[in-house]
Amino acid sequence: MKLNYTIATLGSHSALQILKGAKDEGFKTLIVVTPDRQKFYGRFPFIDKQMVIPTYKDFARVDAQLQKQKVILIPHGSFVAYLGVAGNKEIKTPYFGNKKVLDWEGDRNQQRKWLTEAKIRQPRIFKNAAEIDCPVIVKGFGADGGQGYFVAQTQKDFAQQIKSFAAPTSAATESKKYLIQEYIVGVPMYLHFFYSPITKQVELLSMDRRYETNVDGIGRIPANQQMQMPISPSFVVVGNSPLVVRESMLAEAYEMAERFVTASQKIIDQRGIFGPFCLETIVTPDQKFHCIEASCRIVAGTNLFIDSSPYASLIYDEPMSTGRRIAREIKIAIQKKCLEEVID
Amino acid sequence: MKLNYTIATLGSHSALQILKGAKDEGFKTLIVVTPDRQKFYGRFPFIDKQMVIPTYKDFARVDAQLQKQKVILIPHGSFVAYLGVAGNKEIKTPYFGNKKVLDWEGDRNQQRKWLTEAKIRQPRIFKNAAEIDCPVIVKGFGADGGQGYFVAQTQKDFAQQIKSFAAPTSAATESKKYLIQEYIVGVPMYLHFFYSPITKQVELLSMDRRYETNVDGIGRIPANQQMQMPISPSFVVVGNSPLVVRESMLAEAYEMAERFVTASQKIIDQRGIFGPFCLETIVTPDQKFHCIEASCRIVAGTNLFIDSSPYASLIYDEPMSTGRRIAREIKIAIQKKCLEEVID
Amino acid sequence: MKLNYTIATLGSHSALQILKGAKDEGFKTLIVVTPDRQKFYGRFPFIDKQMVIPTYKDFARVDAQLQKQKVILIPHGSFVAYLGVAGNKEIKTPYFGNKKVLDWEGDRNQQRKWLTEAKIRQPRIFKNAAEIDCPVIVKGFGADGGQGYFVAQTQKDFAQQIKSFAAPTSAATESKKYLIQEYIVGVPMYLHFFYSPITKQVELLSMDRRYETNVDGIGRIPANQQMQMPISPSFVVVGNSPLVVRESMLAEAYEMAERFVTASQKIIDQRGIFGPFCLETIVTPDQKFHCIEASCRIVAGTNLFIDSSPYASLIYDEPMSTGRRIAREIKIAIQKKCLEEVID
Repeated sequence: MKLNYTIATLGSHSALQILKGAKDEGFKTLIVVTPDRQKFYGRFPFIDKQMVIPTYKDFARVDAQLQKQKVILIPHGSFVAYLGVAGNKEIKTPYFGNKKVLDWEGDRNQQRKWLTEAKIRQPRIFKNAAEIDCPVIVKGFGADGGQGYFVAQTQKDFAQQIKSFAAPTSAATESKKYLIQEYIVGVPMYLHFFYSPITKQVELLSMDRRYETNVDGIGRIPANQQMQMPISPSFVVVGNSPLVVRESMLAEAYEMAERFVTASQKIIDQRGIFGPFCLETIVTPDQKFHCIEASCRIVAGTNLFIDSSPYASLIYDEPMSTGRRIAREIKIAIQKKCLEEVID
Repeated sequence: MKLNYTIATLGSHSALQILKGAKDEGFKTLIVVTPDRQKFYGRFPFIDKQMVIPTYKDFARVDAQLQKQKVILIPHGSFVAYLGVAGNKEIKTPYFGNKKVLDWEGDRNQQRKWLTEAKIRQPRIFKNAAEIDCPVIVKGFGADGGQGYFVAQTQKDFAQQIKSFAAPTSAATESKKYLIQEYIVGVPMYLHFFYSPITKQVELLSMDRRYETNVDGIGRIPANQQMQMPISPSFVVVGNSPLVVRESMLAEAYEMAERFVTASQKIIDQRGIFGPFCLETIVTPDQKFHCIEASCRIVAGTNLFIDSSPYASLIYDEPMSTGRRIAREIKIAIQKKCLEEVID
Repeated sequence: MKLNYTIATLGSHSALQILKGAKDEGFKTLIVVTPDRQKFYGRFPFIDKQMVIPTYKDFARVDAQLQKQKVILIPHGSFVAYLGVAGNKEIKTPYFGNKKVLDWEGDRNQQRKWLTEAKIRQPRIFKNAAEIDCPVIVKGFGADGGQGYFVAQTQKDFAQQIKSFAAPTSAATESKKYLIQEYIVGVPMYLHFFYSPITKQVELLSMDRRYETNVDGIGRIPANQQMQMPISPSFVVVGNSPLVVRESMLAEAYEMAERFVTASQKIIDQRGIFGPFCLETIVTPDQKFHCIEASCRIVAGTNLFIDSSPYASLIYDEPMSTGRRIAREIKIAIQKKCLEEVID
């Protein structure tokens, strides 16, 4: 089926997955791209068209043009990183998702309220250093791909490290610079969900573990050598690796996701969150998920499953990436003449 | 092809994989499920029917009903965990596999004899603390998902830690409470095999590495920080991640599996083990497999490969999970009119 | 399509992938195998024929026979390991690839020149111990699967460890025994490329992380226990696990690969490198690739993707392993009557 719409996105993050999925579902595809990435995205024949802007911050320059071309824009992690919440809200091209969610996703305090409303387990938060009574992770505000963290064992250790801690620049507009969070000793698991406002169903499509430099490399250095080396741990996400979870924990995974959706409909607006989202958890030895963050959009870990996913294959009899699932939702909305329900 | 049989299992462990595979092979499917998981398993349209019991220990209540419905039951890890060896033997519904194997799987001493008969390399066992002359791992008897382990460096260290070690409850009926095993420093590899009593062939279908909390998280904490933190390592399996092995080691993997099957036919009974099993190994720098345990049934690591597996694709030209492979074997047995050969 | 050619390789490394891919593309297949592996490779019906030699060093014995049978030989890691560069050059059977590349791949100094010409970031090299001013990794010359490495923190530490370091035997003919390289603290990423001399395009087909014993196991041991255990780290590759990379780094990955190809055409000969190759990198927190080695042939990490790969699925609408991609290239060359362009 050829569809008379074009799916577009910014050239970064999960653009390949999104546009491949769109093409597989019968859409035309367009990428908004900076000059340095034109050649790269030009390699892939499923991208029908390029629209070039000097930097991603200049998106507004092509907004009017896109509107004329029956384009639906799919946001991903780079949208907030480059355009900010305000920049996203100013976009006039039809945009997949509910923009009101951005205010809640982007502010750690609001996000915490949301997760609390959804009765999702979270690490403790310490309002100030004097409250620290366990190992903590200190994070700069704002989602900037994993930089701007440190781990402290004690109040004293915190006092030492905070001196040289530069909160990430994207947090510049926020009143407080960092968050002091209980450090949960467990293993990371990132759960990729999709909520369809049309079927009213949550779907778990895949899972991953982030691959972070250098913390995912230091375990390969024996402890006695580490002690002699000047290693400062960093958590920069440069990739992802696949996981599945113990089946007895899947029911809770689904229920967390449903409570997260329901809570959003209560505290944000009637539509709440829909489309892809990710609950980023640490799993402790009592087999509990502790949610350290929620991402209210497609996450990069889904790039592992462009071709196939064990969980998606339980729901679909064809390869169904998160990118393709988005395009499928839009296609169904067009067919049911309710496109306005999934765009903003 | 529609088959006039129903494949059923308990709602846990690898039930989704088993029933998806059964449906793909043309069977009707049924899940025996506790009330708290009805909603979860209700999400998947490939599960035709639910039968509800208060707890998994109450399986006997539905046994008679299942027998009337041409059901074939596929056991997985939760069967022994919830019903015990005796409970499994009492099941009257046709049961895929040889129940005599359960006695050998469930008792570490018997399993050791079996692996020894199969000439499969195993860690040394210390009969008592006085024999300890290298780092050891101390495990409670019984398969309970990875809890009830500790690592000791010396006799003195062992004496210290054993005081606070509670052997897992499922081992309560066994005379000895724990096993002291040489700690092998290497990397874990779990090899998923299937032996067909019809073709007499072993097939390697996939491989995984367990994802254990918190031991798979602590390597991300720099050594100097770990030294300051009160971390007690635990080995609770909460997921799995995929692996492939060096091709030059595959021949030995296949031969170990064949020796394991042959040994079972000698020491258990003529049928021995058939269907899925897993050799759980540690691989040392000399490229040798050291088998730390054998699981004589489908293992959860196969859930990674519901959609596809590099090894299965060498044997089958369609996606072949272990769950589907079981259903395929039953289908072939039905077609060849030798179903009794694969059930107990 | 049935092709009147036979694809052959040595029975090791990635032979299953190569021959499965060849069969899928319509070729006849043959494996040259030692007696101990006949049974193993006999399990796979996509291998049409076996040719037995006492050891892989005896390849010359069958060379004449293969030439008569319209065979095209696909080299992999075991070819250089068993036959040496000279042994490969003596092969008269048509051989996929450019043999001149072997001289550049096999000599670390030449490889370094090549990577420098390609403007690919590399770790610093120290000409002698007196220059060491940071943690270093000391490697024996020659590719022997990961043995023959040690990490030293200081000049003193180096002096201590070099005493007991036996450079690998395959390096016996080289004048210098080891290489002292800056130890990059980051995470490993191995990028699997394919360059087609027919389309003149580079394709990124997949990525992996090596699974090395025992260094990928020691991170599971808490630091305080490691300090008490006599662990000597080793880097023997026994498997691989899958990865994807951050999309914003993919453009640079492609460009590195193109510069690598272009540089080879300048410094080696007009044809330069073609077919599969791998850039083995460490990624640092500034999101830069540091190339620690290049492999100029199919690497074992591609065995993860025999069935499917997220990156290959962006280029091909069917499963495309590196092994199959090689066969596809040969098939196209045959159809275009330019087979001589891809063989040596």
